[in-house]
Amino acid sequence: MTEDSLSQPPQHLSTEEFREHGHALIDWIADYWERVEDLPPVSLVQPGAIRERLPSQAPETGEPFVDLIKDLDSIVLPGITHWQHPSWFAYFPANASPPSVLAELASAGLGVQGMLWSTSPAATEIESHVLDWLVEMLDLPNSWRTTEKGGGVLQMSASDSTHTALVVARHEAGRLGVQAESMVAYASTQAHSSIQKGATVAGYGHVRLIEVDDEQAMRTDALRRAIEDDRSSGLTPVFVGATVGTTGTTGVDPVRSIGEICAAEMLWLHVDAAYAGNAMICREFRHHQDGLELANSYTFNPHKWMMVNFDCSVFYVADRAPLINCLSILPPYLKNEASSSGAVIDYRDWHVPLGRRFRALKLWWVIRSYGTDGLRSMIRYHVGLAAQLAARIEADPRFELVAPHPFALVCFRCSEGDEATERLIQKVNETETVAWTGSELNEHPMIRVSIGQSRTEQRHVDALWNLIDQLG
Amino acid sequence: MTEDSLSQPPQHLSTEEFREHGHALIDWIADYWERVEDLPPVSLVQPGAIRERLPSQAPETGEPFVDLIKDLDSIVLPGITHWQHPSWFAYFPANASPPSVLAELASAGLGVQGMLWSTSPAATEIESHVLDWLVEMLDLPNSWRTTEKGGGVLQMSASDSTHTALVVARHEAGRLGVQAESMVAYASTQAHSSIQKGATVAGYGHVRLIEVDDEQAMRTDALRRAIEDDRSSGLTPVFVGATVGTTGTTGVDPVRSIGEICAAEMLWLHVDAAYAGNAMICREFRHHQDGLELANSYTFNPHKWMMVNFDCSVFYVADRAPLINCLSILPPYLKNEASSSGAVIDYRDWHVPLGRRFRALKLWWVIRSYGTDGLRSMIRYHVGLAAQLAARIEADPRFELVAPHPFALVCFRCSEGDEATERLIQKVNETETVAWTGSELNEHPMIRVSIGQSRTEQRHVDALWNLIDQLG
Repeated sequence: MTEDSLSQPPQHLSTEEFREHGHALIDWIADYWERVEDLPPVSLVQPGAIRERLPSQAPETGEPFVDLIKDLDSIVLPGITHWQHPSWFAYFPANASPPSVLAELASAGLGVQGMLWSTSPAATEIESHVLDWLVEMLDLPNSWRTTEKGGGVLQMSASDSTHTALVVARHEAGRLGVQAESMVAYASTQAHSSIQKGATVAGYGHVRLIEVDDEQAMRTDALRRAIEDDRSSGLTPVFVGATVGTTGTTGVDPVRSIGEICAAEMLWLHVDAAYAGNAMICREFRHHQDGLELANSYTFNPHKWMMVNFDCSVFYVADRAPLINCLSILPPYLKNEASSSGAVIDYRDWHVPLGRRFRALKLWWVIRSYGTDGLRSMIRYHVGLAAQLAARIEADPRFELVAPHPFALVCFRCSEGDEATERLIQKVNETETVAWTGSELNEHPMIRVSIGQSRTEQRHVDALWNLIDQLG
Repeated sequence: MTEDSLSQPPQHLSTEEFREHGHALIDWIADYWERVEDLPPVSLVQPGAIRERLPSQAPETGEPFVDLIKDLDSIVLPGITHWQHPSWFAYFPANASPPSVLAELASAGLGVQGMLWSTSPAATEIESHVLDWLVEMLDLPNSWRTTEKGGGVLQMSASDSTHTALVVARHEAGRLGVQAESMVAYASTQAHSSIQKGATVAGYGHVRLIEVDDEQAMRTDALRRAIEDDRSSGLTPVFVGATVGTTGTTGVDPVRSIGEICAAEMLWLHVDAAYAGNAMICREFRHHQDGLELANSYTFNPHKWMMVNFDCSVFYVADRAPLINCLSILPPYLKNEASSSGAVIDYRDWHVPLGRRFRALKLWWVIRSYGTDGLRSMIRYHVGLAAQLAARIEADPRFELVAPHPFALVCFRCSEGDEATERLIQKVNETETVAWTGSELNEHPMIRVSIGQSRTEQRHVDALWNLIDQLG
């Protein structure tokens, strides 16, 4: 490149064009939200159908931006399963609320990098502060605040939080000379797959899935027995994952009893409340988290049920020292005065990645925009709709609930048997009007109806019930 | 909650209000980009200054949205270190280009979850397709395409990609009965800290940092000797991380020679080209990646130098079987027809987390908006500016380059000695007009000038040179 050509930087999409297309895109999203109810909630495309519509090579010259937005309608939308659809009853909710989407936009526009305090102090300090807010909002142990011995940090997903907890627990046990191959991690048979996956990734030699009782809660006698068995086989119990609100049925493990076992046996207690942790903003659910002060680490996902768009998972530790001790490495290009002084938090030492977005902005904006009262109303509204549906199912002899419904997930099956349940799943799916999850419990099919999409109203749950009633 | 109250869902920010505030926020971002040059590039706040301005408790009732946007100016901006500033010469670039920011907005608005093909086919298929495009764009081995034996997947950061590679390599060695505590991972002394951190997280017993030559490239004779030494000590060499473009000085390890050693010794070769991988869109840099077909895995970050906003790291594997074999776990609530058929990719099996955003949208939009030619122009422009600055430094006896500058990073020091270099760093920093990174090489201070911000023009580099010239 000649000296002369350097005086002219390459020209691309201008700020003026960004304004124009940005306004159009804001309207496109608002229009999408207004019409999402009319789209089939589950994408109907066949494998490969989207790729077929894409050119085999990247374009050599830039395309007009309007073509990109057009392709949102023609190529992207047919391949989208609409998690923002009011008849979204599948998995757990993943709400993209207006203030959250706008915060995501602001964060992207600022383009900051929050790896160190010094690389954008606001990103770190707002994160610490809002996670300290949440300690009070959810009635978590006070010592988990960053101003105390513990602290919170945003991760991408509960899988990342749980994996990090497993790594730190393994690292602590390793300091005592225990080999990873002889370490055991425990969770219930109903725990999320991320515990088993995280343990595999972290290199644990063994994972034990402990049986549950009729309410889908971990049996502590079985846990105690498994620990004894493993110790007598020469293995080293290290980690217990307790769940408040399992993915399958929102079962609640007895955190206090498990915590007491962990304390006596010197095991790391991690509590996964990915979904149900959000409900703790309402006082009436807090008995489900009794015993949290015994936990070493804890995770819940505001991106599930606190109106924050994915990704936003919160990870708390009761003591930040083992976490930072395990994850801190300081190369010369990251040295700086603020970090050396010890007066600041460098969140790169709190997780596996180095780089990090300014995700705290959306959590901050959502909490401020809804207020704690607004967030409570939303939780209570969904739990109320779920209770109403559950009552209808329970009152109808053709159906039976398969588990308690402490939050806003209702799990049921057809009383007639597995074939009837599978037929109902299929028939409802064929209407292409709702999304729900066909799953299994104790090797029998069941249906999960998860209520929590922010657009879901009583009429949508009524319509679902009418389908169940007509097709069941 | 009474039956009656369920007929009225809680009211929050409406779609109409989203339009209004969305338009305002688009303009706020455009205004920010237009005035960022006038802001001090590095935040000047003291530790705790941002938190002090935040209330100690979350608000009980929702706040008007205009107050949130106002606080962007009054609370957030003073705490931002401006990675989008045209005089941003620190670390590596992290560009938030207009098409990328708009794609981030669209992705947030759609609120899709890409964990499985079936949870939004477009998210998976566009990702696979665009990563296949990149194989050709960057002249990577053809077998890395998803349509062949390998495949690409988006991760959050190169740290995640490298950690994943380490885990898969450990898992493969573990299947042969090797214990993690006896496994060794190798990288050069100049490799990124993520290799050492990733190896610690993955539980490797040993990490060896191999010495480099005068050009900051790993010495293969030293690597060979270290492997021999470890084998004779009863340890098991497992993993080698080679770097194309080190973080310290953009040194380039000899990938082919290292790959030949790995092939002979049956070691996993991972190539970290986080920054420099982006340059391979230009033919003239590709000799630096000679030997890539010997790699088992590879990572580079479009969020550094391909105009995609953070986070967007690409991870390729030459063979996807060991990756999926290590990371796939299938709980009942994730079972579905498309996955069972084997006809689709479920990206949850390609990384640690389960949930995933539709990050491919921004990569797709950036490539289409710039075109490959536009992306090449940007790389060449930055490399040209760097060459010009390096020539000025080289021609001035007061300064000396400390390493080659194959890309757009120039590393230098003061010929007079360490004190002079440190004084220059401090004096330039005191002007509060540029951001650069004071670092170390061979235990001596040096200065890294990284050119790659999309707003940087010749006049900004000229201004930096004038500072160096006047204060040096």
